[in-house]
Amino acid sequence: MPTPPPVEYADASPAVRAVYDDIKASRNVPDVNNFWKYLARDPDTLKRTWESIKHIMAPGALDPLTKEMVYLAVSVTNGCAYCIASHSAAARKAGMTEAMFGELMAVTGMANETNRLANGYRVPVDRAFES
Amino acid sequence: MPTPPPVEYADASPAVRAVYDDIKASRNVPDVNNFWKYLARDPDTLKRTWESIKHIMAPGALDPLTKEMVYLAVSVTNGCAYCIASHSAAARKAGMTEAMFGELMAVTGMANETNRLANGYRVPVDRAFES
Amino acid sequence: MPTPPPVEYADASPAVRAVYDDIKASRNVPDVNNFWKYLARDPDTLKRTWESIKHIMAPGALDPLTKEMVYLAVSVTNGCAYCIASHSAAARKAGMTEAMFGELMAVTGMANETNRLANGYRVPVDRAFES
Amino acid sequence: MPTPPPVEYADASPAVRAVYDDIKASRNVPDVNNFWKYLARDPDTLKRTWESIKHIMAPGALDPLTKEMVYLAVSVTNGCAYCIASHSAAARKAGMTEAMFGELMAVTGMANETNRLANGYRVPVDRAFES
Amino acid sequence: MPTPPPVEYADASPAVRAVYDDIKASRNVPDVNNFWKYLARDPDTLKRTWESIKHIMAPGALDPLTKEMVYLAVSVTNGCAYCIASHSAAARKAGMTEAMFGELMAVTGMANETNRLANGYRVPVDRAFES
Amino acid sequence: MPTPPPVEYADASPAVRAVYDDIKASRNVPDVNNFWKYLARDPDTLKRTWESIKHIMAPGALDPLTKEMVYLAVSVTNGCAYCIASHSAAARKAGMTEAMFGELMAVTGMANETNRLANGYRVPVDRAFES
Repeated sequence: MPTPPPVEYADASPAVRAVYDDIKASRNVPDVNNFWKYLARDPDTLKRTWESIKHIMAPGALDPLTKEMVYLAVSVTNGCAYCIASHSAAARKAGMTEAMFGELMAVTGMANETNRLANGYRVPVDRAFES
Repeated sequence: MPTPPPVEYADASPAVRAVYDDIKASRNVPDVNNFWKYLARDPDTLKRTWESIKHIMAPGALDPLTKEMVYLAVSVTNGCAYCIASHSAAARKAGMTEAMFGELMAVTGMANETNRLANGYRVPVDRAFES
Repeated sequence: MPTPPPVEYADASPAVRAVYDDIKASRNVPDVNNFWKYLARDPDTLKRTWESIKHIMAPGALDPLTKEMVYLAVSVTNGCAYCIASHSAAARKAGMTEAMFGELMAVTGMANETNRLANGYRVPVDRAFES
Repeated sequence: MPTPPPVEYADASPAVRAVYDDIKASRNVPDVNNFWKYLARDPDTLKRTWESIKHIMAPGALDPLTKEMVYLAVSVTNGCAYCIASHSAAARKAGMTEAMFGELMAVTGMANETNRLANGYRVPVDRAFES
Repeated sequence: MPTPPPVEYADASPAVRAVYDDIKASRNVPDVNNFWKYLARDPDTLKRTWESIKHIMAPGALDPLTKEMVYLAVSVTNGCAYCIASHSAAARKAGMTEAMFGELMAVTGMANETNRLANGYRVPVDRAFES
Repeated sequence: MPTPPPVEYADASPAVRAVYDDIKASRNVPDVNNFWKYLARDPDTLKRTWESIKHIMAPGALDPLTKEMVYLAVSVTNGCAYCIASHSAAARKAGMTEAMFGELMAVTGMANETNRLANGYRVPVDRAFES
């Protein structure tokens, strides 16, 4: 049995179309990204994931640009090629300049390095950090 | 041969003391964290790591709070217990409120989730993200 | 010195052919996958890996479909593109339906999310889980 | 500013209590695990996470035991100590025998090994897996 | 059902004792480490894992010290606390000096950093590395 | 705003050229790899990363071949495709034979497997490893 194809708008069920419409309206884009077209193979996961992302990425105590940069830092750490591509674009759209990108990568790289130094040197947590 | 102990200030060489002094002055703290006392087993790594961190975490295109939150998000993704403890403290010191922390964790968790959905559904990169 | 090429059956040593023959007979396939042709650059690793996999993936307390789905969940978590492709195919061959795949990805994604929430909130293990 | 403490039922807001009550009723347990008490520092994340987990872990195309074992395999791969403890307990409660656990760990370990062999040997995806 | 306890020699079956005896003889140690006592809950995994490790870690094209240092670098990257502790001890026993340890950690940390820089900058593989 | 292109020598600033010249002289190569051309989008990260790598990868208590193999093992564990390609080439150039590569992958794979077995069986650290 071949893997089902991604779901284009024209072929989508009403439930999937409703999610697509909300994504397009919320983001003011003419079409949804591949991520959503592939998730749509499971309409339940499509809907739940979109609603969570829409809620989490909305402006709050953190602004959308900061959130997109955190998303990118995590995706870079995990090595998710799709996510790096899509969230690089999203962060730039939200205002990330080239200088911000350079510093974001520097911090992300350094954190990955010192995480391993702390592991390898088996550093115990300082009492001051316990509480 | 037992593992060498962490290096306390009183027992440190002049080269190590110079790094400790710079950390204490830069951060306005009375003593350095365990991370530095363990790294000091290798004075070369101590010095190089401190100079890189001092440089990278300084205010620039991104402010120090944003940098600390990115550091924390990476550490949480990698599951480095020491780093999560120390950078939670550093981020709070830099101004992270509880509401910011909650949103930071929500974004970090969601990114880890959708990274795997993108992997599992084998989503190809949209042409629009290529350039 | 260029990297040695993968080993096709026609060019394989008797020791490698013996493994290939066992794979083809065990799985009832006309040829082995690329994974085995590349591992065959080291006949020792080829043989040991095949014998371990053959043993581990055989029906036991867990059925082969469950084992393939676990294999896929791990590969998705690690972001191994080859492994995701090959174990998606293997799981489908073992009976994974599209509905099962959708739920498998949902669980895998959620586990990756809550793993980080537990890390970030620094949740101590409940006493009830200690024993 | 110290980190806020976990939220016990007696100190919880009505919104948090409602989630706790639903967890206790759904799982037929007298109290919620530490995970929820720590997440409750952010009532929004608490509610969203519980609703997603409740939905995803319900019986469907996959039975609850299979889902718990997948959850455990992912947590073991990521090295999340809290999650390994809690989902080991949950999987046993759902019916995982010691023999099942042994096979689950064997598959999880082997997948982590062959994921790296595929990476290191740079194995290209077989054409048969493309579709 | 509580988790089965680790298996001490006095309580071990003949099959488990045979593995323990081989570990003790091969490594010239009076008792096996906790790792083996816990794995012994599944005698099949105990035997297979020991035989693989014994074979892989034996002197070959790489000497045992190099192999132990690679093992440690991987364990540090994954953040496996038990493995970092046990393979630090094994590497020291095999001859790793403090200076070697310092350089090993420096390389491991740097590799983890540049892995993420390569991810984040989305660097395409040079044609010269293709073959 | 499109992503800036990688920086070729002809288009590089004097500061970037100085780094490129040092890389070419240190490694005796006619041009730098893509990694450096992409990093050069941030001249500060380019310079800092090169200086750290040049320093860390120089002969010391560990020889350059051992260092390159450790770098490769880490990259394979993280699944960084670019890094696996470039450090496979670098390790071969430094003297890694096919037999060494085979054993390196076997150790790397096994370490990734037993890291997860130690996680899953929740093995406590032996007292003998504490000091």
